[in-house]
Formats: sequence, C-alpha cells, structure tokens
Amino acid sequence: MLNIDPSWRHIVSPDFTPYDSMDPERKILLTGADLFFPEPCLPSHVIDATKHALDEGRTHYSLANGYAEPELREALVHKLKTFNGLDVDPETELLVVPSSAMGLYLGIRICVTPNQGDEVLNIEPGFSENINDVLQIGAINVPVPVREETGFHLDLDAIESRITEHTRCIVLTNPNNPTGTVYDREELLGLADILERHNLIAVVDQDFERQVYDKEYVTFATLDGMRERTISVFGTSKDMGLTGYRVAYMVVPKELFPILKPAIFNMHGPTNTFAQIGAAAAFNDPQYANDWVELMRSRRERGQRILDDIPGISCPLPEGGFYFWMNVSRLGTSEEVRDWLIKDAQVGVGLGTWFTPLGEGFLRVMYGAVPSEALYDEALRRMDTSLRKLATIKGIA
Amino acid sequence: MLNIDPSWRHIVSPDFTPYDSMDPERKILLTGADLFFPEPCLPSHVIDATKHALDEGRTHYSLANGYAEPELREALVHKLKTFNGLDVDPETELLVVPSSAMGLYLGIRICVTPNQGDEVLNIEPGFSENINDVLQIGAINVPVPVREETGFHLDLDAIESRITEHTRCIVLTNPNNPTGTVYDREELLGLADILERHNLIAVVDQDFERQVYDKEYVTFATLDGMRERTISVFGTSKDMGLTGYRVAYMVVPKELFPILKPAIFNMHGPTNTFAQIGAAAAFNDPQYANDWVELMRSRRERGQRILDDIPGISCPLPEGGFYFWMNVSRLGTSEEVRDWLIKDAQVGVGLGTWFTPLGEGFLRVMYGAVPSEALYDEALRRMDTSLRKLATIKGIA
Repeated sequence: MLNIDPSWRHIVSPDFTPYDSMDPERKILLTGADLFFPEPCLPSHVIDATKHALDEGRTHYSLANGYAEPELREALVHKLKTFNGLDVDPETELLVVPSSAMGLYLGIRICVTPNQGDEVLNIEPGFSENINDVLQIGAINVPVPVREETGFHLDLDAIESRITEHTRCIVLTNPNNPTGTVYDREELLGLADILERHNLIAVVDQDFERQVYDKEYVTFATLDGMRERTISVFGTSKDMGLTGYRVAYMVVPKELFPILKPAIFNMHGPTNTFAQIGAAAAFNDPQYANDWVELMRSRRERGQRILDDIPGISCPLPEGGFYFWMNVSRLGTSEEVRDWLIKDAQVGVGLGTWFTPLGEGFLRVMYGAVPSEALYDEALRRMDTSLRKLATIKGIA
Repeated sequence: MLNIDPSWRHIVSPDFTPYDSMDPERKILLTGADLFFPEPCLPSHVIDATKHALDEGRTHYSLANGYAEPELREALVHKLKTFNGLDVDPETELLVVPSSAMGLYLGIRICVTPNQGDEVLNIEPGFSENINDVLQIGAINVPVPVREETGFHLDLDAIESRITEHTRCIVLTNPNNPTGTVYDREELLGLADILERHNLIAVVDQDFERQVYDKEYVTFATLDGMRERTISVFGTSKDMGLTGYRVAYMVVPKELFPILKPAIFNMHGPTNTFAQIGAAAAFNDPQYANDWVELMRSRRERGQRILDDIPGISCPLPEGGFYFWMNVSRLGTSEEVRDWLIKDAQVGVGLGTWFTPLGEGFLRVMYGAVPSEALYDEALRRMDTSLRKLATIKGIA
C-alpha cells in the first residue's frame, strides 16, 4: 500500500450507482448530477462571443492581474456593483478561478493551518463539498445545526456557542443548498457582529444568488466591516448556465489578495481564456438568465403545490435556489423513499443524507435540473402518484 | 490582521515588475510569462472542433468518469499508447484536470500529511512552482542538487542520502525545467530502484515531453514496477500549444484513482467541456505540434551557437524543452545580467534564481516564447551585442 495522507482515504462523493438501475428510456433525474437549465441551454450571444474569441486567437494563457481578461473584469465590476451592491477594485480584490468549488476550497484553505486543530463552522444540513473540503484540508468540521421549524434560518446562539480559540471561519451558502433558505439582513447583521467580535472570516458561497424569490438578497460583504473579513465566491454555472465553461470568481479582502494570487497560480494557474470572454458576454446581457429565474419560479410554484399536498410530506416553498428540500420522514428514511421513487416512478432525486446526517428524512428535488417543462411535469405526475401510493402503504391518508 | 495559515503569507511568485520598465515599442520577452509558440498559434482543425462543440451545445458540466469527455478519453488513450508506451485503462487510471499545475499540486498533496514533518524531494535547480506547492501544502522541501558538470543529470547517491523516514515522494520534471535535461533510461532505472526500496511515490511532470532532441524519451511509469507508484502529469500547453484551453491529464496508480477522483471533485470539479473536445482534435491530428518541435530545434541550434560563443558565457545545447539554461556567472549575478539585458537590449529573460537559489549565476532564455522567427533573431542579435559589451566591461575577452 502506498504511503499517502491517511485522511484522504476517507474522502467520499455522493454515490450515484443506485441510479444506474433506472430504465434508460423512462428515467428522469432531478439530482443535479447531470445538467441544469432548459435546452437549448445558452443564447447565441454567449456562444458567438466564445467562438469569436477563438477566431481571434484568444487561446493564449490569461495572465492579467487577478487572472481576469479585460472584458470579463469589466463585466464583473459592473455586475458586482449593480447586482450585489459591491464597488470592487479589480486590481486588488477580484480573482477569477475555474470553479466556485475551487474558490470555496481556497477560501477555507487560507483560513486554516492543516492538522493543527483549526476549526471551521458549517451550517448543517449543508452542502457536502464544503464539509469534504474541511476534511480534505486537514481541519476540524464543526456543525452548526439549523432547524426545520425556523425555515433553516441561522441560530446565532448556536453559532456563538460553538466558537472556540481554534475557530477560524464560517462557511455560509446563501441561498442555502439544500434548504433554499435566503438569509435575512437581520440575521446576517447578527452573524457579522459575531465574526467581528471573534476575528473570524466568512467564506460565502453565492452560487444561487440569482434565484431568489420575493425577498431581499443581501450580499454579506456589503455589510459594515464585513468586506475586510469576507471571501465571497461566485459561480457562473447556476447563475448564468455556464456549467461547462468553468469560470468563477472571488471578491476577497485586500489583505488576502496578494496571498491568494500566487496561491492560485501554484495550485492551478489562470482560467480558460475564451471561456472568460463568453462569460463576459453573458454578464453583459443577462436577460436570458433572468428569464430562467421566472421559469424556475413557475416550476417552484407548481411543484410545491403538488408535492406539499401529498399525505405525509412537507414541501415548503423555498426562498431561493432551484430545488425543494422535502421532508419525507413520515414515509421512511431518505434512502428508502429515494429508492422507492427510483423503482416505482423511475424518478431520481437526491438523498438528504448527502447534505450531512442532519439531512436524514429529507430529499432534495432539483427542479432546475430537467431540460423541459414537459419532462418536469411528467416527473411531478409520477412522484405524485408514487408517493401517494407509498403513503397509503404506510397507512397515512 | 486576519487569522490565516501563517505559512501562506510566505508564498511568492516570480516578480515581473522589473520588466514593466521596458520600452513597449522595442521590448522582446523570453521569460515564458507571456505566450508560447508561433502566431497564429493553433491550426484550424483544433479551433473548428472547439467551435463545433459550442454549436452542438457541448456546454454542460462534464461528469464522465475521470472527468474526461468520450472524445478526449479516446484520444488520450491512443496518445498515451503510441507516444508514451503506456497502455491505460481510462476507467481506473486516467483523470482530466484543468492544468498540469493542478495535477502536480494534487500529486504532491496526496503523498503528504500537512504539517506533520513529511518531506518531499525536489531536484534543484528546479521548477519553483513545485517547491511552492510543497510549502503551500505544509510539507518540508528537501532539495537534491544536480550539477552543471553532469549536465544536471540525477545524482542517485545524493537522492538516496536525503531519504529519511519522513520522505514521501520525489518530484521529477522530465524534460527538466529550467535545465532542459532529459533523463536517461539508466538513471531512471536507478531512481526506480530507490523508490521501490523506500516505498516512495514519484510525481512526474511531463509538460515538455514532445520537445526532446535526438535522444530517447522515457516515460517513467513505463519502467518495471513504477506504474504502481507514479503519478504522471501531462499538459497540453507546451505539448500542443493549448495554453489558454486549460486542459491537462494525469495517469495515476489504480490504488490512488478512487481517492483522487473525489478529491478533484471537491477541490475543483470537471474541466471545461468544449475545451476538452478541442484538445481531443489536437491529439488526433498532432502534426502541427510536431512541426513546432522542428521549429524549436532550429531556434535551439542557431541560438546556442550565438550565445555560447559570447565570452564568459556557457550555453550548452539543451536536451529538451524550449529554453536555454545559460551560465552567465562570469558576467555578474543572475539579477545583474538580467537587468543589464532589460536596460541595454530591451530583452527580458528569466532569472536563474526563480528556480531556487541554486539557479544563481544562470538565466533561463525561453526561445519558445516568441511569436516569430524575425523577433527571435532580433532578440539573439541584441543579446549578442549587449552581452559582448558587458563581457568587455567585465574585462573578459
């Protein structure tokens, strides 16, 4: 056996093999493992800008400051100002990276000294990659539970009670994945106060920031004093549908920029040049992405009405994102109900336990991950029939 | 001050600010920081395949096993067999990553447990990113010097004498950057024997494998027993000129594949989908890249004749790569001679000390990093005149 970091032997990803048994002709996946957004996915101005960059020979290594090509830099400065309310100096605060996964990894990594007992707070249930990052880096994950009764909003007392001299940062996914919770200004102000008092860093994942329904969206770094202690990570996959482009970006404290810049260079280097040009075109004309939000709003409303009406199931309207966090605990464990839907309905949904053990009893139903309305409605019909059948079997009526 | 990993405050990249003073109209950069290969850089079959992928909607997240789209997987299996002599099972040995920098980072990272005194052997002078990786990860870099008198070939006794119970792996850049050394089969067999006896892993960077002049190139993993303990990292930037594409790949021991796969997912995720299709087209029809090797051979020969003839300078023919590792120590320190060339000739070359302190007295002259023969010849003329002037000033004739 090779002599490697023993902790790496425990890194796991969600197991997708149960979906392999599904009927290829009939199966509908709402797991998020496959694709997002309707087909055809991207509008012509994005594709054309990418192709134009290729025609123009924009295939060279992108070594501009912050690894941002001029067009993308300009587009992001505008987007951050108008969408997020952040006035960013691209020379000292903006970094382009190839994925928000990498932004989050870097954000957590810079905060902690590996294998020295440093602790990272993660809201749970929560995005499993963030917890995997902590373990992969060699830090200690400290779960801060949030409860269904409060809509999975932050419990500030629970956060503060878990802070020790070893705590280095908190990871916040806003809108949350999987719960869909969009944090209120008031609770974020409370969190800011805690971070300030304990000199902690916030690593904030804003991947789903565009999908916020009927409520104010607060970019954490806009709060007083938080700009200096927040590593904000933004993607283009969920925001602009550029899943295969692999372009993401970070807004970081000026203090950390000169440290993160060479760290990114050593660990990865610049991001694809022509993909950056395509991403710039997307941000400069984002109407298609805003139209998708309306489509997602409609899927969210009709899906919630159907699923929440099933006996034994609670499926509230999510505040953000494009997935339901559905409580099925009266019908069985996450795995039992997931497996039932695979077998009985040929519909694949995500296990709650992918999002920490606190996700037990839940399923994540990713309504943004089907290519057409017809397929979505078919999935809803089948889930409705199948879960009602299961409720009857379980004696719930 | 934010409370971060203190070791990250010491991560540095080469300082390019001295080149900022150059005359924008006249300057010629042979640093490698800008671009590689002649202009126009890429042939139409590569660009067209990339554009075709965009037209076909190949813009989705690429979640095939090993993060390799089918076309690239097939192209790489063929390339690895015919070029490297490696019969690879893509299901259990091949991983696509967005850069060889990331492949090397991952390769080193999996071998060591951070901040536990684990040691990594690096051949020095050597590629500074590999040493930065070791420090950034939290391991101890153990330099193994190689000497000019032996053409910077491996000193097996020096390697073995530095192995302790804390040693985990050796990083090998073959062809070497910056020395251009291409390791002989015999010395690699000696190294293999050492690794076997001490149960160590080899992390091998094969970025410049196509630029090997008049000598056998040995892919380390083809040696008996080495497949099981070698993490081979391959790029497409120097090999196929795809610098802005950001596509690289790794061949890893079967034992490590199931560990690296989720680790890559957590740290980064898949690689750009349409860039992978373009890279597949490049590997399927690599004549343009082979033509470049002949161009590089010609640059190498005429550059070496001129530079080696300058009094006080030793510039041997490199065995591989597309750069000279030029001893200028009789004319001054690396920095003095580099600065002289900037000021007197408006030619920018790389500091030897970018490649560890053992690079003192050397300059790396990257002849692959100018877009045209005319510009290269102009750079040679100016360096010839300017360095002869400096030799005269220094009293060397």
